[in-house]
Amino acid sequence: MTVSDAAKYDPRTFKGLTFHDAVAGFRDGKDSPRAYLERCLATIEAREPTVKAFAALNVTTARTAADASTARWKAGQPLSLIDGMPIGIKDLLETKDMPTEMGCEAYRRNFPKRDNAAVWALRQAGAVIVGKTTTAELGGSHPPATTNPFDVTRTAGGSSSGSAAAVGARLLPAAIGTHVGGSIIRPAAFCGNFALKPTQGGINRGERLATSMSTHGPHAASIEDMWQVAIEIARRAGGDRGCLGLMGPATTPQPIKPQRLIVLETDGWAGLDPATRAAFSELLRQIEAAGVEVIRRTSSMAVEALEKAVTNAGALCNAITGWENRWGQRNLVDTNGEGVSARAKAALARAEAMTPDDYRSLLLAREAAQLTHRMAAPVADACITLSCPGPAPHWSGDRPGEPLAPRPTGDPVFNFPSSMLFAPVVTMPLLSIGGMPVGVQLMGQQHEDARMTSLARWMMGAIPPLAV
Amino acid sequence: MTVSDAAKYDPRTFKGLTFHDAVAGFRDGKDSPRAYLERCLATIEAREPTVKAFAALNVTTARTAADASTARWKAGQPLSLIDGMPIGIKDLLETKDMPTEMGCEAYRRNFPKRDNAAVWALRQAGAVIVGKTTTAELGGSHPPATTNPFDVTRTAGGSSSGSAAAVGARLLPAAIGTHVGGSIIRPAAFCGNFALKPTQGGINRGERLATSMSTHGPHAASIEDMWQVAIEIARRAGGDRGCLGLMGPATTPQPIKPQRLIVLETDGWAGLDPATRAAFSELLRQIEAAGVEVIRRTSSMAVEALEKAVTNAGALCNAITGWENRWGQRNLVDTNGEGVSARAKAALARAEAMTPDDYRSLLLAREAAQLTHRMAAPVADACITLSCPGPAPHWSGDRPGEPLAPRPTGDPVFNFPSSMLFAPVVTMPLLSIGGMPVGVQLMGQQHEDARMTSLARWMMGAIPPLAV
Repeated sequence: MTVSDAAKYDPRTFKGLTFHDAVAGFRDGKDSPRAYLERCLATIEAREPTVKAFAALNVTTARTAADASTARWKAGQPLSLIDGMPIGIKDLLETKDMPTEMGCEAYRRNFPKRDNAAVWALRQAGAVIVGKTTTAELGGSHPPATTNPFDVTRTAGGSSSGSAAAVGARLLPAAIGTHVGGSIIRPAAFCGNFALKPTQGGINRGERLATSMSTHGPHAASIEDMWQVAIEIARRAGGDRGCLGLMGPATTPQPIKPQRLIVLETDGWAGLDPATRAAFSELLRQIEAAGVEVIRRTSSMAVEALEKAVTNAGALCNAITGWENRWGQRNLVDTNGEGVSARAKAALARAEAMTPDDYRSLLLAREAAQLTHRMAAPVADACITLSCPGPAPHWSGDRPGEPLAPRPTGDPVFNFPSSMLFAPVVTMPLLSIGGMPVGVQLMGQQHEDARMTSLARWMMGAIPPLAV
Repeated sequence: MTVSDAAKYDPRTFKGLTFHDAVAGFRDGKDSPRAYLERCLATIEAREPTVKAFAALNVTTARTAADASTARWKAGQPLSLIDGMPIGIKDLLETKDMPTEMGCEAYRRNFPKRDNAAVWALRQAGAVIVGKTTTAELGGSHPPATTNPFDVTRTAGGSSSGSAAAVGARLLPAAIGTHVGGSIIRPAAFCGNFALKPTQGGINRGERLATSMSTHGPHAASIEDMWQVAIEIARRAGGDRGCLGLMGPATTPQPIKPQRLIVLETDGWAGLDPATRAAFSELLRQIEAAGVEVIRRTSSMAVEALEKAVTNAGALCNAITGWENRWGQRNLVDTNGEGVSARAKAALARAEAMTPDDYRSLLLAREAAQLTHRMAAPVADACITLSCPGPAPHWSGDRPGEPLAPRPTGDPVFNFPSSMLFAPVVTMPLLSIGGMPVGVQLMGQQHEDARMTSLARWMMGAIPPLAV
């Protein structure tokens, strides 16, 4: 696939790189994890110079791991259904065989030689860690060099830029991202991925515990691989400390048709471009035509209350996270100020203007919104919204002397509500606008991760994707 | 004070090193923070070779900080009521001017040059960071060389060994400890300290977030200094991410007489030595004589339910914490196995035998116990128990070829219930048994830290300490 081929994304015809359906070949010997990996490496060689999805690659170790997996499949003793899956790890998570540079100059050559709990679990399940995928600096908004796999002039989104791009560009069948405000769902939506942002605490974050509102989650080209990666981690490493962690079936949950869906419009609705708005409306029309009742704020007081509770979710999420990161980032700036971007320093300055009481009031607002969300549970099976307000925007770098672009990795406006609600989200590649992917997301109540996956599977089977 | 002087501890006459009452002298110029620090350093010089409370000292920086504080008091512009207070920091917390070795060979010369959020807050309040106090290895049970300030042949307790010993030996007026199972309250009780184990999440733990059940807390020779240290940190750095954090008056809460107290007997009760049991019974008799109703499991179904809910709290706390630490400690052992004790490796092996479902079942039991505790709230103002099952035990090191001593830093059996309940505890030096301190603790409902401090102040004024 060349860059120009890729530039016309159509969700009706696009075939992502899947793994779950390769397993039969591993079993009967027609294919092998090593051969699968070599195909990935060939695509990486062809496309990585343009896509720039990786902060580091470890081909030697990956080949060794793929050979070990090949032997296990041959012996009929795979460690799991993702044994042999080539996977990328966002470069915020520690991996013992590659540096962890976090998209930040100050962490250049940082090499702690430790495995994050989720990485440990992936290795236990036999997955093949191919590389570290790029991240916006420190998981914030200062972007890496990564480009959108479907248009080199556009962002891949962020902060899980490399994970989303690697999957969208067919470099890998899956990659691990992390999400605070919108760092999994937005880039996944811009790059045509499936992705799961689990219920807060669903997947063990290992050393990445600084914030109260962040999760690890899988990006994948298929919903089967998305679920399998998540559950294989959770079965081995569980959730965050103090949390029950992701629970659900050992293989992808069966499709379930929702009876009722809430259309959550939230802050970004008014500013939508006409093409995206029209495409989403047409999708809703098809969902209704399939027999699903669609409920809006105008028809339910509980939905109206929820819409109000998540108003200004972005400001709340950013302030909470800024406060939580302030001591770590202050130490970093004190130790190596030159190695931290002006964008991150501006966020730190905003956090340092806050008091503990400012933070408390935000926590109380977040808690109240979560209660409001819970009270809306009887209204419908899930909420449905756009995963992003239109296609990935163009991004060509900050210009010296000009103010910093406010959202170089795109606008997470549709991602903040689920983040503040600690709610599980599955994004699906259901739309394209002008040849670029736009995701649609289902959000459930806390701990309904498996259920959202079931509803998404029904949707992918019953609702034809739209290209406008 | 010589070691032999110290060996006869009597809570009726022992005068700890206080700071809150030195402030008047700073104001009127008869004393100064620099002079106060020099007195501490003289005591440290005399006693530290025996007590071994410090993992590191930074006298130069402490003198500079004390001089700056002296100037602020002279100008009538102290930063807080603990401006100029010499304080020790448990060597699990990062400080930018000293190594953080965590009592573990594998962390020898670890020097991250960062300040933990609580350390940052203490510096903002003008406190003088004198040194890093010793800790049992990684906050576990493998002890440091620290000795009990009142008997060199006995443990100071742990894991906050150095913080407790430094305060008990009058080296410092206060020190920061950390607590998972019993790591603040037990050593404080063995060394004649006041200490606060805050409500879970009460004080910002900074980078120390690996476990769901651990808090920072102050050890001090007076309840006034204990509270002031806690609230000055919380006013600046708040609580853990996601938590409201310690709230309460800006100066020590006023004494409040309880009307009713629950005597919680819990697991260790049956094994108490006769002298300790008799002393505690006599103390309860005096409390009743002062007009406080004392309620036991035999007279309240709610108390009986609570006693049952915290049965085997120790096994639960150790298993939860072991699971939460397992990835970090596995990485450490993989990287530097020689530098980790056999005791810590045995704990890791136990954790690695657990599954996510084992962990979940423990979380559910902990949550149920917390609900049961909440349901007992109307029964009384607080629970009262011993802080430790008798005086600090003798400890003279592991013997090669023999099994590891199971509890070299003493038995935390009376500390696990409050830990699993996330409940605030204040320990008071109210008893001595054979010339050694034994603490008594008040435990409240979550977020009643200030109220427990008030009840403790009443107790210290109304109930005479006992020496038997």
